[in-house]
Amino acid sequence: MPALLLNPDRLFPADPTTRGIVRSLYAAVRDLPIVSPHGHTDPAWFATNRPWTNATELLLSPDHYLFRMLYSQGIALDDLAVPRRDGTIVADPRKAWRVFAAHQHLFRGTPSRLWLDHVFGAVFGFTEALTAANADDYYDRIGELLATDAYRPRALFDRFGIELIATTEGADDPLDHHRAIRESGWGGRVVTAYRPDAVIDCEHEAFRGALATFAELTGEDVHNWTGYLNAHRKRRQDFIAAGATSTDHGHPTARTANLSPAEAEALFAKVVAGAADATDAELFRAQMLTEMARMSIDDGLVMQLHPGSFRNHNRGLFDAYGRDKGADIPTRTDYVAALKPMLDVVGTSTELTVILFTLDESTYARELAPLAGHYPCLKLGPAWWFHDSPEGMRRFREMTTETAGFYNTVGFNDDTRAFLSIPARHDVARRVDCAFLARLVAEHRLDEEDAHAVAHDLAYGLVKQAYKL
Amino acid sequence: MPALLLNPDRLFPADPTTRGIVRSLYAAVRDLPIVSPHGHTDPAWFATNRPWTNATELLLSPDHYLFRMLYSQGIALDDLAVPRRDGTIVADPRKAWRVFAAHQHLFRGTPSRLWLDHVFGAVFGFTEALTAANADDYYDRIGELLATDAYRPRALFDRFGIELIATTEGADDPLDHHRAIRESGWGGRVVTAYRPDAVIDCEHEAFRGALATFAELTGEDVHNWTGYLNAHRKRRQDFIAAGATSTDHGHPTARTANLSPAEAEALFAKVVAGAADATDAELFRAQMLTEMARMSIDDGLVMQLHPGSFRNHNRGLFDAYGRDKGADIPTRTDYVAALKPMLDVVGTSTELTVILFTLDESTYARELAPLAGHYPCLKLGPAWWFHDSPEGMRRFREMTTETAGFYNTVGFNDDTRAFLSIPARHDVARRVDCAFLARLVAEHRLDEEDAHAVAHDLAYGLVKQAYKL
Amino acid sequence: MPALLLNPDRLFPADPTTRGIVRSLYAAVRDLPIVSPHGHTDPAWFATNRPWTNATELLLSPDHYLFRMLYSQGIALDDLAVPRRDGTIVADPRKAWRVFAAHQHLFRGTPSRLWLDHVFGAVFGFTEALTAANADDYYDRIGELLATDAYRPRALFDRFGIELIATTEGADDPLDHHRAIRESGWGGRVVTAYRPDAVIDCEHEAFRGALATFAELTGEDVHNWTGYLNAHRKRRQDFIAAGATSTDHGHPTARTANLSPAEAEALFAKVVAGAADATDAELFRAQMLTEMARMSIDDGLVMQLHPGSFRNHNRGLFDAYGRDKGADIPTRTDYVAALKPMLDVVGTSTELTVILFTLDESTYARELAPLAGHYPCLKLGPAWWFHDSPEGMRRFREMTTETAGFYNTVGFNDDTRAFLSIPARHDVARRVDCAFLARLVAEHRLDEEDAHAVAHDLAYGLVKQAYKL
Repeated sequence: MPALLLNPDRLFPADPTTRGIVRSLYAAVRDLPIVSPHGHTDPAWFATNRPWTNATELLLSPDHYLFRMLYSQGIALDDLAVPRRDGTIVADPRKAWRVFAAHQHLFRGTPSRLWLDHVFGAVFGFTEALTAANADDYYDRIGELLATDAYRPRALFDRFGIELIATTEGADDPLDHHRAIRESGWGGRVVTAYRPDAVIDCEHEAFRGALATFAELTGEDVHNWTGYLNAHRKRRQDFIAAGATSTDHGHPTARTANLSPAEAEALFAKVVAGAADATDAELFRAQMLTEMARMSIDDGLVMQLHPGSFRNHNRGLFDAYGRDKGADIPTRTDYVAALKPMLDVVGTSTELTVILFTLDESTYARELAPLAGHYPCLKLGPAWWFHDSPEGMRRFREMTTETAGFYNTVGFNDDTRAFLSIPARHDVARRVDCAFLARLVAEHRLDEEDAHAVAHDLAYGLVKQAYKL
Repeated sequence: MPALLLNPDRLFPADPTTRGIVRSLYAAVRDLPIVSPHGHTDPAWFATNRPWTNATELLLSPDHYLFRMLYSQGIALDDLAVPRRDGTIVADPRKAWRVFAAHQHLFRGTPSRLWLDHVFGAVFGFTEALTAANADDYYDRIGELLATDAYRPRALFDRFGIELIATTEGADDPLDHHRAIRESGWGGRVVTAYRPDAVIDCEHEAFRGALATFAELTGEDVHNWTGYLNAHRKRRQDFIAAGATSTDHGHPTARTANLSPAEAEALFAKVVAGAADATDAELFRAQMLTEMARMSIDDGLVMQLHPGSFRNHNRGLFDAYGRDKGADIPTRTDYVAALKPMLDVVGTSTELTVILFTLDESTYARELAPLAGHYPCLKLGPAWWFHDSPEGMRRFREMTTETAGFYNTVGFNDDTRAFLSIPARHDVARRVDCAFLARLVAEHRLDEEDAHAVAHDLAYGLVKQAYKL
Repeated sequence: MPALLLNPDRLFPADPTTRGIVRSLYAAVRDLPIVSPHGHTDPAWFATNRPWTNATELLLSPDHYLFRMLYSQGIALDDLAVPRRDGTIVADPRKAWRVFAAHQHLFRGTPSRLWLDHVFGAVFGFTEALTAANADDYYDRIGELLATDAYRPRALFDRFGIELIATTEGADDPLDHHRAIRESGWGGRVVTAYRPDAVIDCEHEAFRGALATFAELTGEDVHNWTGYLNAHRKRRQDFIAAGATSTDHGHPTARTANLSPAEAEALFAKVVAGAADATDAELFRAQMLTEMARMSIDDGLVMQLHPGSFRNHNRGLFDAYGRDKGADIPTRTDYVAALKPMLDVVGTSTELTVILFTLDESTYARELAPLAGHYPCLKLGPAWWFHDSPEGMRRFREMTTETAGFYNTVGFNDDTRAFLSIPARHDVARRVDCAFLARLVAEHRLDEEDAHAVAHDLAYGLVKQAYKL
C-alpha cells in the first residue's frame, strides 16, 4: 500500500547543505502555538462542542478544494454528497467517500494531498494512504474516532495547540455562538471578524435581507446615510466585544473612492432605493472601503482586503448548488490606481493597518511589495487561496521580500473552514518559509541567526503584532 | 571544436539526489511512442514521400524561430533565403547556411539550440557543434543524406517512433494529401485538424477566397447563416473522415459570445456583406467559438483555443515577406470574462473537451488552472510557442499543478512545422516533466511510484485520452 | 556581533557542482572594469571633487530604497534627515543614523542589505554588521574617512575601476559640470544622457520653467513646432558634445504615436497653450517618442525607454517632501500595442537602438523577449529598479533568454544616485548572471566555454556595444 506523505523532511529542498539549515530552522518553529487570525471555521462547533458525524460530512462535502477537482473530471457533485441549494443531499456519505477514495490520483502534486495526509496521519493515526481498497476502513475508523470525546471540536482545538482562532461573521450576524463560547467557561480563544460585504454590496443576493437584520440589530435607520454609517460603527463595537480585531472585505475589485459627503449620500440613496446599476454598485463598494478605513482609525480594527475573485462563475452550478462550490475564479486585479483614493485620505496614517491579499500573483513584485514597502498603513497578507500552496508561498516570498522585506508581511492565514487541516496548513507554511530562509542562508544572503529570528516572526510574532492579538 | 549539447543528463537538475530520481523516471518514458496531436507539418511530405533538398530549405528558411533571431540582430531575411511574399528567394541556400552557422552564439541558452543539436546529432550523426568553420561540411553531409531513402519523410516518420501525427488544415482545404496518404497503403497515421479561422475571421486577408472555396466544397449557400453553419457541419465531417479528432482556433483573443439566433444571423449578414467593423469582427469570432462548441458536443471533435497572438506586428516585414515570419507578438489575454458566455452554454457538459492554450503566463495560476480545475469541459494545453522551452515548461507545471493537478492537462504538443525537430521537442518535454516530478519526489511531495505513473501519463496516456486518439 | 554579508560565495547556488562552475565563471569577470551607461550620480561630485560630509548625508537621506523601508514601518522621514520640499532638515544626522542602525532587521533578505554590507566592508573596511550598538562607531569612522583624500569622488571613481559612467541631465541643463570635468584634465570618463521629460511632459510640474530654459539655451522659438523640434536637435548635439551616446525617456506608459505632421503641430499648439487635457498630454508624449526615434536615426543616440511608474503616489508625502521619496509605484504596462505606431515608422531600421526597460515582469516572456527577439532596433535593458535584485535578475534571465537570447540584452545598469554602491551593484549582477549561466552548464544546456564567453559579454562586452561606448 502507498504510504502517507509525512516524511519529516517533506517540502525541504534536496540539496544537503540547504536541507541541513532548513531542518534547524524548522525544528525551532515547528511546535509554536497556532495563531489563526483569518478563517471560516464555524463558531457553532466550539459553542456546542457537538461531535462531527462522519468523514464525508466533515472532510469532503464542505471542502470545495476537493470536490471541485473531482467535478473537473466529470464527477457529479451529487455523487460527492455536496448539498444542493435546497439542502438535498443525494449520495449516501459512505458511497461519496468511496468515489473520493477512488480518485486520489487527481490530487497528486496538490496541497490538498499534503493537507489530507497530515489529517489522516497526524489526526487519525492512519499509516497508509487512502485508496479505493481501504476507503471503507478509513470511513469506519474516522467515524468511530469522531464519536469519541477526544475528537470533539474543543478537544481538537486544544490538541492542535491553537492559541487563538478568528472566525468571520457578517454584519447581520447576532454573534450568539461567540457569546456562548465566552459564557461557557472554556479557555479556548475564538474571536470573530467583521465582514460587512452583504450589507455593502447591493449585487449580493442577500443584500436586502442582511440590511433589514442590520437595522434590527442596531436600531438605526440604515436607509439613511448617517444611520447606515452609525449602524456600522455600532456593529463594529459589537464585534470588538466578541474579540474582533479585524474587518474583512471580499469585493470583486480593490477599487476605493473618495467622494464628498454629499456625493456619498446621494449614491447611497440610489443603492438603498434599488436604483443602482453595476457602476453605482462598484462605486459604492469603493466608497465604503474608505469609510471603513476611517472607522478603523477610530476604533482600531485592522482592515483586510480580499479582492479579485469572480464569484459563481459557473451559472448552471450556481443555480443548482449555490455559492462556494469551487467556481470562484481569480481575475486580473489592479491595486495602484484602485487604492489611491483611499490612500489619499488615510495613506500617511500610522494608526491604521490595511492588509492586502491577492489572487493575481503578477501584482506581488509589481504593485503590492512597492506599496507595502512604502505606505505605513499597508501590509501584505500571505499567499491566498489558490496560492496557499508550497509553490505559491515560495513565489510570494521570492517576489515580495526584496522590495517589502519580511516585516511588511503578517505571517500565515489558513483561511479555511476545514478545521482539521489547520495544523497541516500552518505546518506547510512553516516548512516553506524555513526552506526559503535556508536558501538565503546557504547563498550567504542572510545570517543563520537572523534567519532564526525571521522564522520565529513569520510563524508567530508578526501575526500577533499585525492583527493586534 | 565545441561538442553538441547531447549529454544524457541534459535538462536534469544538478543536485545528485534529484538527478538520480529523474534518471529513473526518464528512462521509463524516453522510448515511448510519439503522439503529436497538434502541429503544422505538411501532409504533402507524407503523401508524396519526396526527398527534401538541402539543409537551408529544410531547416532554416521555414523556421521562424531561427531566422527571427538572426533578423533581430540586423541580418536581412533575404540573406537567409527566406522567401519574399512573391516567392523570390534572394540568397543562395549554401550562403544562407553559412550566415546561419556564423551566428550560432545567438542561440546560446535557447531551445532552438537544443532542438538543432538533437537534429544534428541524433538524426544526421554529427558529433561537433555547427560553426562557421564546418558550415560547408554540415551543408554537404545533410544534402547527401537527404538524397537517400532513409531520410525521406516516411522513413523518418517510422524511425522517429511516431504513433500518430496531426496536421492542421483550413476549412477550405480539399484534404487531398490526407486522401493520398490513406490510399497509399503506407501504415503511418497522419490525421488532420479543422482550423476554420480563415472562414470565420473577416479581418483575415484570405477570408473572401476561403469562403468561396468553402461554398464550393460543401455545396452550401455560405452567405446565409443556416447554410454557413451547415457548411461547417459538413466540413467537420469531411475532416473526421480524414482522421480529425480536433478543431483549432487561433483568434486574437479568447472572447466568446452567446447571441440569440436572430442576433447571430444579423451579425453574420454584416460580416458577409463586408460591412463589419473591428468590433463586429471580434464579436463574430466570439460567437463562432460558441457555435463550434455546440457542434463539438454533437460530433465529438475536441476544441483547441490558441488565443493571444498579435499577428504580423512588423508592418514593413509583413508587406515584404507575408505571414509567419517571426513577427507575431503575444499580448495580455483574459480568459475569465472572455470564456463565460460560451461556458454559460456548454460549461457543465461532460461531453465536450476544450483545450486552452496561452501565450500569457500570468494566466496560468490566476485563471487557467482555476478554470480547468473546476469546469469538466476545460483542459490545459501544454506550454505553447515562446513557452515551449525548458523554463517555460517548468513554469507551466509550477504554476498549474497545485490547482489543476496533472489530470486536467493533456500531455505535450510539438506544434511545429519543423518535422525533424519533433523527437527533440518531445524529448525536451519528457525530460523537463520528469525533472519536475523528481523534485516533488525529492521533497517528499509525491511517491516515487506515483511519479512513474504520472510521467507515463504526461508522455503518453493523457494525450491519447484528451484528444480521443 | 553579526558579520557582514561578504562571503566570497554569496549569491552562488548551494549545490556543489553548480557552485564550482559559478566560482570559475565569476573569477573571470569579477575584476573587469565597470561600465555604467545609465545612472543618476551627480556630475558636480566629479566636477568639484569636494569631500562628502557624513554617513547620513551620503548614504541614508538621499537613498529612497532605504528611507522608504523605514517609512513603511511608521518612522517619520523627518527623523531620517530627509529634506522637506523647502529644504528643511529636521533631524540631526547622527540621530538619523542611529534610527537607521536600530532598524537593520527591516533589510533582511533585501538587496539594500547586500549593497550596504559591500559599502561598509569593501569601501570603509568594517568587519561587523551595523547595529544599534555600533551606530556611533560607524558614523564616526565614515565621517573621518570621508574627510581624507582617498574618499573624495575622483579617488573613489578610480579605486572602483570605473571605465565610464553616464549621468542623466534634463534638456534644460546647461551641462556646466560636464564641461568642468572635461576641462579639469582629470582622466575619469563621465558622460551625460539626454532626458527631455520635463520639456515633453506638460503634466510635469517643471514643464513651463524647463521650456523657458530650453528656449534660452537653444535660441529657438520652442512654442512653434518646428522650432521645438530644432531645439531638441540642437540640445542633442550639445549632449553629444558632453559625451552622451543615449537619450532616456521616463514616461508613465510606453505609448507611442504616429501622427501626421499637421496633427502633431496642432497637438503641440494645444500643449504649449496650456490647453492640453490628460489625453492630449499622453498623446503628445507618445508622439515625441516617435520624433525622438527619428532623431536618433539621424544623430546616432541610443534611446532608452523607462515606462510604467506611477510617480508620487502618496499625495501627502509629495506635498511635504516632493519627488523621488520612494512613493513611485509600478503599474501594469503594455508594450505590444503601445510601441507599434513608432515601430511602424522605424521598426525595420538597423541604424536605431531602442532599449526597453520594465517594472512589469509579466511582460518579460510575453511581450519584451518576443519583441526584442524580432525587431532589429529593440534590445532589453536589465532588470530595473525594484527588480534590480538577485531574484529580480534571475527572473529576468529565466524569462527572457529562451526567446531573446543573451545578445538582445545590453549588460547591467546600476541606475543609481548612490555612488558608493556602484561596485556592489555590478558585483551582484555579475554573481547572479554567472549563477544563471552555471545552472545552464550544470544542466548541459550550455558549454562551459560558451558560458565564459557569455559571462564576459554580460559584464563588459554588450554594454559597450549597445550603448556605442
